[in-house]
Amino acid sequence: MRVTFEPTAFENSFGPYQAVLSLNSGDTLCTTTLDSRGRDGDMVVRGRAPNPLTGPFYVEGAEPGDALAVDLLSIRPNRAYGYSSDAVAAHVVDATAVTDLPERGLAEWAIDQAANTARLSSPIPALAALELPLSPMLGCIGVAPPGGQTISSATSGSYGGNMDYRGIVAGTTLMLPVSEPGALLFVGDGHAVQGDGEIVGMGIEISMEVSLRVRVLKRLDIRCPRGISATSLFTLGNARPMEQALQHATTELLRWLANDYGLDARAASTLLGQCIAYDVGNVFDPAYTVAARIDRALLSR
Amino acid sequence: MRVTFEPTAFENSFGPYQAVLSLNSGDTLCTTTLDSRGRDGDMVVRGRAPNPLTGPFYVEGAEPGDALAVDLLSIRPNRAYGYSSDAVAAHVVDATAVTDLPERGLAEWAIDQAANTARLSSPIPALAALELPLSPMLGCIGVAPPGGQTISSATSGSYGGNMDYRGIVAGTTLMLPVSEPGALLFVGDGHAVQGDGEIVGMGIEISMEVSLRVRVLKRLDIRCPRGISATSLFTLGNARPMEQALQHATTELLRWLANDYGLDARAASTLLGQCIAYDVGNVFDPAYTVAARIDRALLSR
Amino acid sequence: MRVTFEPTAFENSFGPYQAVLSLNSGDTLCTTTLDSRGRDGDMVVRGRAPNPLTGPFYVEGAEPGDALAVDLLSIRPNRAYGYSSDAVAAHVVDATAVTDLPERGLAEWAIDQAANTARLSSPIPALAALELPLSPMLGCIGVAPPGGQTISSATSGSYGGNMDYRGIVAGTTLMLPVSEPGALLFVGDGHAVQGDGEIVGMGIEISMEVSLRVRVLKRLDIRCPRGISATSLFTLGNARPMEQALQHATTELLRWLANDYGLDARAASTLLGQCIAYDVGNVFDPAYTVAARIDRALLSR
Amino acid sequence: MRVTFEPTAFENSFGPYQAVLSLNSGDTLCTTTLDSRGRDGDMVVRGRAPNPLTGPFYVEGAEPGDALAVDLLSIRPNRAYGYSSDAVAAHVVDATAVTDLPERGLAEWAIDQAANTARLSSPIPALAALELPLSPMLGCIGVAPPGGQTISSATSGSYGGNMDYRGIVAGTTLMLPVSEPGALLFVGDGHAVQGDGEIVGMGIEISMEVSLRVRVLKRLDIRCPRGISATSLFTLGNARPMEQALQHATTELLRWLANDYGLDARAASTLLGQCIAYDVGNVFDPAYTVAARIDRALLSR
Repeated sequence: MRVTFEPTAFENSFGPYQAVLSLNSGDTLCTTTLDSRGRDGDMVVRGRAPNPLTGPFYVEGAEPGDALAVDLLSIRPNRAYGYSSDAVAAHVVDATAVTDLPERGLAEWAIDQAANTARLSSPIPALAALELPLSPMLGCIGVAPPGGQTISSATSGSYGGNMDYRGIVAGTTLMLPVSEPGALLFVGDGHAVQGDGEIVGMGIEISMEVSLRVRVLKRLDIRCPRGISATSLFTLGNARPMEQALQHATTELLRWLANDYGLDARAASTLLGQCIAYDVGNVFDPAYTVAARIDRALLSR
Repeated sequence: MRVTFEPTAFENSFGPYQAVLSLNSGDTLCTTTLDSRGRDGDMVVRGRAPNPLTGPFYVEGAEPGDALAVDLLSIRPNRAYGYSSDAVAAHVVDATAVTDLPERGLAEWAIDQAANTARLSSPIPALAALELPLSPMLGCIGVAPPGGQTISSATSGSYGGNMDYRGIVAGTTLMLPVSEPGALLFVGDGHAVQGDGEIVGMGIEISMEVSLRVRVLKRLDIRCPRGISATSLFTLGNARPMEQALQHATTELLRWLANDYGLDARAASTLLGQCIAYDVGNVFDPAYTVAARIDRALLSR
Repeated sequence: MRVTFEPTAFENSFGPYQAVLSLNSGDTLCTTTLDSRGRDGDMVVRGRAPNPLTGPFYVEGAEPGDALAVDLLSIRPNRAYGYSSDAVAAHVVDATAVTDLPERGLAEWAIDQAANTARLSSPIPALAALELPLSPMLGCIGVAPPGGQTISSATSGSYGGNMDYRGIVAGTTLMLPVSEPGALLFVGDGHAVQGDGEIVGMGIEISMEVSLRVRVLKRLDIRCPRGISATSLFTLGNARPMEQALQHATTELLRWLANDYGLDARAASTLLGQCIAYDVGNVFDPAYTVAARIDRALLSR
Repeated sequence: MRVTFEPTAFENSFGPYQAVLSLNSGDTLCTTTLDSRGRDGDMVVRGRAPNPLTGPFYVEGAEPGDALAVDLLSIRPNRAYGYSSDAVAAHVVDATAVTDLPERGLAEWAIDQAANTARLSSPIPALAALELPLSPMLGCIGVAPPGGQTISSATSGSYGGNMDYRGIVAGTTLMLPVSEPGALLFVGDGHAVQGDGEIVGMGIEISMEVSLRVRVLKRLDIRCPRGISATSLFTLGNARPMEQALQHATTELLRWLANDYGLDARAASTLLGQCIAYDVGNVFDPAYTVAARIDRALLSR
């Protein structure tokens, strides 16, 4: 079934809140997300920072121990105005070598969906000609955390959250470990474009129209988010420091290869040693995000 | 001038050793490297672990404060036998979740240059059909370190070294900061293939024929290695933990954009925030390596 | 006023739960805590892992922006049986050098309050004569986290939590930043003894009788826990990795010296550079804890 | 035998340099060290930054695989002028919370050995009454590194080096792993006082008179520095980040307890879990230093 949901209230944490809507496994949901400061497609402030979330959506039949698959069908900006920041975070540079970082200000962008471009509308002469292709993604996607916790949409964990990984795009399926009945899916924090690491603390922040399909994968024991894109399998480690995020992602990819592809630790090590790719999701939020990826083509043989 | 040099002795550190050959800026050098355990193209043991290095090569006119550009013209395995390891490092997984890591053993590979493939010759049934495209690279490339230091070829730093970054391939130009007269260039530790992070501690280790051109870039003040590929500019941070490697790389990319592209910190931050890419070179050696990259197309406008 | 409270229900998270009791600023509370697995002084299981918490206690007049001072008057084991673990965590040793870590088992201890000693009751012959002086502390103490979050008692943050710092002993005053009306104080996870770092994942775990006084410090803007012992001021950074915990603690100590002792950054730096002490609270929990300390005697002059 | 040596040349790295003097095992050496900027007890500049080293001293009979014990008999400032810095390092605070760090300037100190005090001679009114007890230590002590390396006196490693640990005081015995014939001992970088972490990048820097005894411990297989003080055994991990330094130190302490005290991993874990203490040597130098300590009294029973 295809369900359209227009949100009216927004949470700022992932947690076991009262669901706003109940979906069946297999349903497609069309909804919208606010930008990171709470403005909608008409620039009306309807939520508050940080990262107001649309949801939670209850998925019938999802129980602790299952995974929730989310097929991201479409993620599209629903307005022309985006914004980012103009200062890299102090902690991503050598403090003694970079002493001219500006006070963090806004950079503003004009989003042209027809042309599929983002162009600066802020006056930065050196970047006057800059034209970036859009790659719309969700910074926040996740379910209710384990143990009945309620955790700010500023950070992430095994349940997903504010991962700010630029692989969360249309065409990708994300799988999330279910901790609460109904899973309780949230989405938000859309970015029209984002660099690796989200090193200015923002992508090009914008409100979105999102279309996604939910599917319950019974008794699929996953420990952190997994994704399938057209070309890759990936896992997402969310932790600080980067080493721990990388450990979580690598571990989950080993589990996946063992469980679904019959590769024991020796075979999987041999393969991943020469074929794994790591992506840096974010190194800005309280928990960092690192993705471990492998080409599906290497596994289909 | 084109110079061919057949090495007869191999160092295991980057340092101010007596040069084996003197080159002029602009010369092309054709030489060979041993594998990480010291065997040459005929499987004759001629050096010793770790990572025996060919060099150092003295480049006329290179002085402290300059950079040495190395145009990597060709990197080709000169035998058919490669080897890697079959166990991911304990520190790249969650110790409590991954308890079946094998004792680290060898995986052996057949390298077919005509077909451009690597295939396992070790008996790992689950990977019997695995066929990887070759992407020959140098794990070690660097000059003499600053301050007269002599540093093991197991690690890396501002001078380059054992960076194990899979972007060090033919077609790339690498720039290294000169600390000693003549720069004193070393190369070694070829990999026919390598995954991000070098998480099994090895690529597909193999001896190589290497062709490269050296050029002295006078008074080019770089702080760590920079590279130019067909599509990208990149910088290499070598440090532990990953965050510090990332800081070094990001800082050097900001310096590059400021000095050569006229982007002040605000403009560069705005650009990199949405466009930077990070690659994970290695997370195995004493110093880890992270690359910060940006598409050249974004800068040419 | 002196209030005695016998808890009957126990939370496993710090969060804005319904208070179990309301206290006035200045009141003394006498209560008990379960051990980390939920057993009370009679070894009756009354709560569940991890770290069941006594509370929350509402303190009249405490509002966001205030600090809650907790004078720890007495922390005493209320039974003779304690337990710890017999295996250091895999992540506190070099994986390649330490290959004989046991499966994590229990070590059991006899607690003798009259003699003030803990002795192993588990049969470990090499430690048969070991006799440790008691130093009873609370592993968990904190208030409701900011932003309406509900966070597991397995970890810690700016609100306190499972800090596992062995300076949380009787005679110490701890100050916590208030985020919710009434502060909502929780205590639990008593340890009869604990080493730095809590590297086996446990102190000598035991149920406790706790006596403490609460005081509201209006408009005291603190960012993480502060403590005052007989000899020292200290601040507690709770984060991962250790560097970030150390940053938080150092930053808060600088704020304290600036606000209460009139030391600007230059004076405080000069002093702390030669006089700061760091303690390692825990390096086991999801967030690590580092304390920054300075002798009060250096400040009274 | 008691040998007095007045140094005339100073190295800035630990490495296999030509020895300045040969000692026998059991000899006592009396010598002097320059301050970190190269000035001697008369304020004459005789060496250069960073950390000019006295040595190396060849110890007869010391061979790779042995340990060199250094009994620190006396470490005394040989002048009245010391200096430190007045700005904590940017990386030990939260960049967003501490925005008023001064440019790093000098703080100057009057060292009074009769009174055993350090007092500021720089005009910092808020610290006018500050009087610190002297605790003279060596920031640098080490032997030639493994593998023939030559490594800057700005950093440290398994061979010792610039550890900046305030436990390196008179009355302590330090043991260092020998990598080169004769061990090749270096000392330097005296501090009259130092805080944990060396967070301003300096102790109270001063030239010293040092008296020490060397002893060769044949076939004592140690992996990083070990120390014995009046009350404690300690081990020193030198690495970045802090976690790795802590791992090295913990691992070496486990090895020590196994080899010399008969404690297997289970017994040692049980003991250390409740009794280990960690000290933060430095968090400023390229490699950080963490000490793992245990009371000798716990082991003598």
